Amino acid sequence: MNEPVLARLHHLMTLREEVETLAGPVPWSPAADWTDDDAHLCLHLDVPGVDAGSLEVHEDGDTVTVAGQRPAPERLRRGERPSGVFRRTLSFPEAVRPQSGQASLVHGVLTIRFEKRHPTISVPSSDLGRAPQEE
Amino acid sequence: MNEPVLARLHHLMTLREEVETLAGPVPWSPAADWTDDDAHLCLHLDVPGVDAGSLEVHEDGDTVTVAGQRPAPERLRRGERPSGVFRRTLSFPEAVRPQSGQASLVHGVLTIRFEKRHPTISVPSSDLGRAPQEE
Repeated sequence: MNEPVLARLHHLMTLREEVETLAGPVPWSPAADWTDDDAHLCLHLDVPGVDAGSLEVHEDGDTVTVAGQRPAPERLRRGERPSGVFRRTLSFPEAVRPQSGQASLVHGVLTIRFEKRHPTISVPSSDLGRAPQEE
Repeated sequence: MNEPVLARLHHLMTLREEVETLAGPVPWSPAADWTDDDAHLCLHLDVPGVDAGSLEVHEDGDTVTVAGQRPAPERLRRGERPSGVFRRTLSFPEAVRPQSGQASLVHGVLTIRFEKRHPTISVPSSDLGRAPQEE
């Protein structure tokens, strides 16, 4: 092959590599829920297949950042599942006590439980609808 | 309150319930990967928080259907994670032996391993690039 053809071939191979990079791992932003009870806020994050050792949790004022990763599958035939590194920063729905988070990882769901700064007072449902009485 | 106001209030409450139904559980279609080795095809499905007892797997010719569910969280403040029932039917990337699937659920990932109908023959990489020799 002559020089221009080789150069063109090289160019095509580079293009192909770039296209393959574009079609690479799906970017990963794990779905999150916030739930609460009277004294706690709980963050639930779907992180199936993530090793506990790869997870990092970092609180910073009114946000919490969770990072982790899972390896890309080998010998992939068809792929939809995200892989590689993720990093997600979420704002607390309300103020929590600093560094109060307790994390657990069960069946691929990371749950972090924070203490509310201002716990709410639970009112039994039988008392709802009645006007507060002065004492 | 007079009758028209009560009727209007009832109407508003019905509307609110309808809006809450619309904003209900996110429909769930778990992400799936297919990987292979020479003799097997593997399906990997992200099902974090799903109880093994709720999972059903059904093979039907050239497709496999997986169904399951996880309960909706209580006292949700902000929600992104899908919940409720899912059902996904996937076609095999190539033919498998009927009823050969072996399922396991680890860290929220369901893996089902099927035997290929036509296992491929692995060629050691050191033999690649050499022309086959007649015997």
